[in-house]
Amino acid sequence: MKHFIVIFILLTSQAIAQAPQLYNHVANDVHLIHSRVLNQDRQVYINVPKLDSVDSGKALPVLYLLDGENHFHILSAYIEYLRHWQVIPPILVVGIVSLDRIKDLTPITSLIDFDGKVSSKYKTSGGNEQFFDFIQQELMPYIEANYKTSSFKLFAGHSLGGLTVINCMLTRPDMFNAYIAISPSVWFGNKYIVSVAEQKLPKLPMRDKKFFYSVGNEDGHFRNDLLILDKLVKQSRLKTFEHKYKYYPYEDHMTEPIPAYYDAIRFVYKNWKNDMKK
Amino acid sequence: MKHFIVIFILLTSQAIAQAPQLYNHVANDVHLIHSRVLNQDRQVYINVPKLDSVDSGKALPVLYLLDGENHFHILSAYIEYLRHWQVIPPILVVGIVSLDRIKDLTPITSLIDFDGKVSSKYKTSGGNEQFFDFIQQELMPYIEANYKTSSFKLFAGHSLGGLTVINCMLTRPDMFNAYIAISPSVWFGNKYIVSVAEQKLPKLPMRDKKFFYSVGNEDGHFRNDLLILDKLVKQSRLKTFEHKYKYYPYEDHMTEPIPAYYDAIRFVYKNWKNDMKK
Repeated sequence: MKHFIVIFILLTSQAIAQAPQLYNHVANDVHLIHSRVLNQDRQVYINVPKLDSVDSGKALPVLYLLDGENHFHILSAYIEYLRHWQVIPPILVVGIVSLDRIKDLTPITSLIDFDGKVSSKYKTSGGNEQFFDFIQQELMPYIEANYKTSSFKLFAGHSLGGLTVINCMLTRPDMFNAYIAISPSVWFGNKYIVSVAEQKLPKLPMRDKKFFYSVGNEDGHFRNDLLILDKLVKQSRLKTFEHKYKYYPYEDHMTEPIPAYYDAIRFVYKNWKNDMKK
Repeated sequence: MKHFIVIFILLTSQAIAQAPQLYNHVANDVHLIHSRVLNQDRQVYINVPKLDSVDSGKALPVLYLLDGENHFHILSAYIEYLRHWQVIPPILVVGIVSLDRIKDLTPITSLIDFDGKVSSKYKTSGGNEQFFDFIQQELMPYIEANYKTSSFKLFAGHSLGGLTVINCMLTRPDMFNAYIAISPSVWFGNKYIVSVAEQKLPKLPMRDKKFFYSVGNEDGHFRNDLLILDKLVKQSRLKTFEHKYKYYPYEDHMTEPIPAYYDAIRFVYKNWKNDMKK
C-alpha cells in the first residue's frame, strides 16, 4: 500500500508540470525485416519496456511471440504492469506478425483437418523448420544487434502457434529458455507431435528450461490431446525441467489466451527477485 | 477455428500491400480537461476501439476507469481483443489519471490508516463528492460531446478506487449501469462504507445494474472486510441486481487487478450477443 501511494505522488507531481502525456504508453513499434530464408518481408511488433532508473542499462530477456497481430498488446500490457510493480523483470516483446500461419506454424505437410477430413486449407502446411531458421538465423541476430538483450529467451504461441512452440522445444531445445504453448493444436497431422514427443522427450536436454502448456473448455479433442502430451512430459522425469499444465474450464479457444498468458508469465518468473531491490 | 483463419488471411493479404503498421494498435490519446468543480486540469487517457465494418457507426458504452495511469493499458488491451473476437461490444475506455488519489478516492475525511493508527498521509481525504461532481457534470458531458456514446456506462476502480466505486453505487446509483470494485479499501475510515451500505443497500434502485467486487490474498483484513459487504449485498435480495464476488487466492493487492478486471468485463457482458451477427 505504502509503495503504491508514494509512486503515484511522485508521478503525478511530474504530470502537473509537463504537457499531458501517457505515463504508461506501450512503446510499440513496427519493424519490417527482409528474410532471405523465407524470401519475404516480415513485420514484427516490438515493445521496449519503460525502464525505471533501477532497471536502466539492464540487458533484457526477449519474448518471441507468435501471431503478434493478435496477442501482442495483451502481453505487452501485462509485462509493462508486472515490471512496474517489480513482479517480473523488464522484458522486450517481439510479436511476429503472421503471413501464412498454416505454413509457418505447422511441423509437417498434412491435409487432414481438426475433424479428420482432408482439407485444402492446409495445403501450404509444413514450414516449421524454415520458420525456425528465420527466427534463429535472421530475427534473433537482428533483435540482438538493435537492443541490449540478455541470453534468456521465451517462445510463446497459441493454437497452431502453440504446436509450433512444442515442436521447437522438442527439436531445437537450445533455442529458448522458456516455452509457452496455449491451446496447442496437438491434433495436427494425426497428432504428429505426440510421436515426436515419445521419441525426443526422454533424452531432451531440458536443464533449467521451463514449459507452460494449457487448454480451455474447447470443442472436440483439444483437452484430451494435450493430456496425452502432459502424460509424456510427466513420465519423462527430466531433472530441473520445470513444467506446468493448466486447464481453464470457463474459457474457450479464443478467450483462454487472456488468463493463460498471464499465468504463463508468472510461472516463468515465479522465483524471480529484483536484485536491485533491498 | 475456421473464423480465426479466414480473418488472418484477409488481414495479412492487406498487410503485404501496405506500409508496415500495427494492426492492433491501441488508439490511446491524452486529453487535458479543465475542471471548474475541482479547480484543476485533469488528464484522461482515451481508447477508441477499432471498429470493424460490422460495428462502425455504433454508439459506444463507456468505461470510466480510476487510476488510469496504472490500469488503462490492460483494460484497453482486453477490450480490443474481446471485441475483435465478438465476446463483448466495442467500448470506449476513459482512464482518469490520478493527481491526489487520497483526496479524490475517499468518501470522508479520516486520518486513520490501514493499521488503525493516525497518519498524516490521509490529511487531504474526503473528496469523493466533489470528484463525482467532476465526473458527472464535466467529464461525462465532455466525452458525450466528443464521441458517439450509448447510455451504458461502467465505473471501475482498484483499492481506494474500488472504495470510490462502491460509494458511488450506494450514493449515486443512477450514475452508472455497472460498478467494478477490485480490492476495495473497505477498511478506510473505520469501515465507513459498511455503515453506508447498511443504510442504503436495502432500498437501492439497482434494477438491471451490475456489481463485481473481488479481493486477492492480501495482507491484513482486506478479505474479511469485503466479506462483510458481500453479506450485506446478498441479504439485500434486490431484484434484477446482478452481483458477483470473487476471491483470488494466488494474487496479491497489486497483481489481482490483472485477472479480476478480465473477469469483471466478462461478468458485465456475460449475456451479450452481437446483434449484427447472424
